[in-house]
Amino acid sequence: MSHTTRYSIKIKIIALPVLFFLIFCLSPSWTKTQENRPYLDTAERILKKGLNEQEAYSLLKDLTDIGPRLTGSPQAARAVQYTCQKMAELGFENVHLEPITVPHWVRGAAEEGKLVSSRLGSHPLSICAIGRSISTPKKGISARVVEVRSFEELRQLGEQAAGKIVFFNRPMDPSLLSTFGSYGQAADQRVRGAVEAAKAGAVAALVRSLTMRLDDFPHTGLMVYDSEVPEIPAACISTKGADFLSDSLKKDPSLRVHLKLSCQNLPPVNSHNVVGQITGSERPDEIILIGGHLDSWDLGPGAHDDGAGCVQSIEALRLLKELGLQPKRTIRAVMFMNEEFGGSGGRDYARAEERKEERHLAAIEADRGGFLPLGFGVEGNPQTVERLKRWEYVLQSIGICWISQGGGGVDIAPLAEQGTILIGLVPDSQAYFDLHHSALDVLSTVHPRHLELGAVAMAVFAYVLAQEGI
Amino acid sequence: MSHTTRYSIKIKIIALPVLFFLIFCLSPSWTKTQENRPYLDTAERILKKGLNEQEAYSLLKDLTDIGPRLTGSPQAARAVQYTCQKMAELGFENVHLEPITVPHWVRGAAEEGKLVSSRLGSHPLSICAIGRSISTPKKGISARVVEVRSFEELRQLGEQAAGKIVFFNRPMDPSLLSTFGSYGQAADQRVRGAVEAAKAGAVAALVRSLTMRLDDFPHTGLMVYDSEVPEIPAACISTKGADFLSDSLKKDPSLRVHLKLSCQNLPPVNSHNVVGQITGSERPDEIILIGGHLDSWDLGPGAHDDGAGCVQSIEALRLLKELGLQPKRTIRAVMFMNEEFGGSGGRDYARAEERKEERHLAAIEADRGGFLPLGFGVEGNPQTVERLKRWEYVLQSIGICWISQGGGGVDIAPLAEQGTILIGLVPDSQAYFDLHHSALDVLSTVHPRHLELGAVAMAVFAYVLAQEGI
Repeated sequence: MSHTTRYSIKIKIIALPVLFFLIFCLSPSWTKTQENRPYLDTAERILKKGLNEQEAYSLLKDLTDIGPRLTGSPQAARAVQYTCQKMAELGFENVHLEPITVPHWVRGAAEEGKLVSSRLGSHPLSICAIGRSISTPKKGISARVVEVRSFEELRQLGEQAAGKIVFFNRPMDPSLLSTFGSYGQAADQRVRGAVEAAKAGAVAALVRSLTMRLDDFPHTGLMVYDSEVPEIPAACISTKGADFLSDSLKKDPSLRVHLKLSCQNLPPVNSHNVVGQITGSERPDEIILIGGHLDSWDLGPGAHDDGAGCVQSIEALRLLKELGLQPKRTIRAVMFMNEEFGGSGGRDYARAEERKEERHLAAIEADRGGFLPLGFGVEGNPQTVERLKRWEYVLQSIGICWISQGGGGVDIAPLAEQGTILIGLVPDSQAYFDLHHSALDVLSTVHPRHLELGAVAMAVFAYVLAQEGI
Repeated sequence: MSHTTRYSIKIKIIALPVLFFLIFCLSPSWTKTQENRPYLDTAERILKKGLNEQEAYSLLKDLTDIGPRLTGSPQAARAVQYTCQKMAELGFENVHLEPITVPHWVRGAAEEGKLVSSRLGSHPLSICAIGRSISTPKKGISARVVEVRSFEELRQLGEQAAGKIVFFNRPMDPSLLSTFGSYGQAADQRVRGAVEAAKAGAVAALVRSLTMRLDDFPHTGLMVYDSEVPEIPAACISTKGADFLSDSLKKDPSLRVHLKLSCQNLPPVNSHNVVGQITGSERPDEIILIGGHLDSWDLGPGAHDDGAGCVQSIEALRLLKELGLQPKRTIRAVMFMNEEFGGSGGRDYARAEERKEERHLAAIEADRGGFLPLGFGVEGNPQTVERLKRWEYVLQSIGICWISQGGGGVDIAPLAEQGTILIGLVPDSQAYFDLHHSALDVLSTVHPRHLELGAVAMAVFAYVLAQEGI
């Protein structure tokens, strides 16, 4: 849209709100209303500074330049150093590392998938080991394939899966509005596929990638083993690869898949959560936490998951600090380590000795991607949500549409025991799983303004809570 | 985010809402509440079908495959044929073309910008003629350059601009939440730059492209001439080019810019608005219009502007029709021609003889890009907005956040005289001007789910209004 006619129409469009605004301002109720709606000016200052400078994106560039930050990797350690140093440079207080222990799994170089059929020939399959998977024997596994859509369907096959590769091929349901809902419904295949396949006597599990895009990129993630059944290797296959394999199985049910994984579960290593804050002027021991997780998967640099949440937390503090907005309570940014590989960062943070002297009133986690922020989900009873909803008007002034019941986040969840209110920043989820846990999760898929608006929203909400309490 | 711990946390997160839902359902007020909140089931059916099939994207692929659809061009004529045929194939009623006359401007092949400086050497500049501009002489214009940020600054220069090229270099303000606001504040340079420059005796106008991205793509759009002053050629320059030129002017104020444009204003040609509908079963002459504009600029295939609005209108009707949702009032999709070059399509539609037998209750235009839909803006007094707000709960169930005061759209604006309520679909605007009116406005920048959600929102809102009236 746009042209001259519209240009005059635009003036008309602009004129109407201006008129209403003037009527509103001139009415006697205005001053009173302004008094009853504090923080609007503060929110606007934070918004304008954020959008003018868009520093969150520069921070994310630095962070993603380090590369994929898998828990236990040298890149994860570099990300710890980078964020710690950056927060110190920005003049935050109490900047320090809190030691934790993390698993150390490595993918290994030799990863290979191949379809082999006497009738259809040999075709490469785009696959990747699932996090925590054991390796195959060095020369790989070659076996026939049985395709299922659910664990129930697998159980009904009885003996038929024995000695074979179980191919879990249930796609994410595209018809749900929230793609997190679709993810939640399909993720059992990746998380427990190897366990269920092993129960059926299978030699490996192959799982359709958890994305609604049709492409050649495999998506990884975490899986579990169960001490009651043998550990078998497990990999994800790209959605195009999954469709191709499924079609090929219809043409040649006796085809074989060759799978080679060289991943290793190594001894745990030391790592860190990274902490920095603006200390409260009146109640320094009462804390509003904002955070994300520093680790990512190893296929890409985790720009959205969760580089975005980390840099938004740093940027939120930076905006407040540079605007001279001194909060009454402490606002603390935490970059948690190891969300992806078991969540030990969040658990260890909540249990740390230092926490005994502190009281976390609320924790806001950003771990759903750096897309346009839409709302805040609050974990807890409807009364809690109602209490926080009184700040909806402030957030709406900076483009956040709602506060409502919802989930906080994995890293802050262990704080619930202390009575902390858990809050999650909820951005547009429509494109998140296109790139989640894959090589596609790179900086160029993040829009600087979307990313910054998330940081602004966290800064504003944290500041209001730091001033007002819960 | 995502891993096993979260997997169990997710179950916890999911469990809470389920619990509340059960408590809610078992309470005696539930049945009553359901009765008071109709259309939720219908909205869900439309949403699920839309997201399952995502046909809007297929339609947009076909439409953008035609190429740029500048008013008066052969591609615009092909787009008329395509959408008309498609609506007939889909079984819509009253599918027809309504003739209009449109301007016919062509860019011409020879477009060239160059910076020439004895000190700095010669550098190409990425430029494009502004729509309606006259051409330069065949060999181009070569002149010194004066840079300004506003018409006021230009006026203060007095005689200094005479014989020169006026370079309007005021960037869009990044600090506004709505990028349409930033656009509105900067667009005067493109629209009236040539007039103001000519008043100052300049030989041409060069305008910084209306985008906040720093890149090499020039953005075009419409401009005006004024019969009181000479017509001079006008071009837009890419933002990187504008920064380069500005820097170079500081180093060498006597540098020259060479500008060659070969555009032509040809005689008007015949074209068409395209109409199709589902005729109302009870009040067929009462109409809820949904629409977008079929023409685009000529630098790209106008995927967002406004291919999106056109295919969303067709898709909205398709969803209703295939779900057997027969509206009481007529729901009509209109693809307006020539929004970009003067808005004659919208004016001629409102004035057409056929309109005398009809009453347009409401018109919903989608012309702000195919991004995530956030709300509906309603043009009119607060009472009108309040009346429509009672349907907010239906729209919120499909992800639309709000109904509020706002603008309708250029094409539907002329219907206001008949008392039609004008409504605009408002998507996320953060990335819109990155690509608006440039070669970047292509299919790959549209997310199929965002596009479809806009179509779903239009289908749901139009259906509710068709059943309930205003």
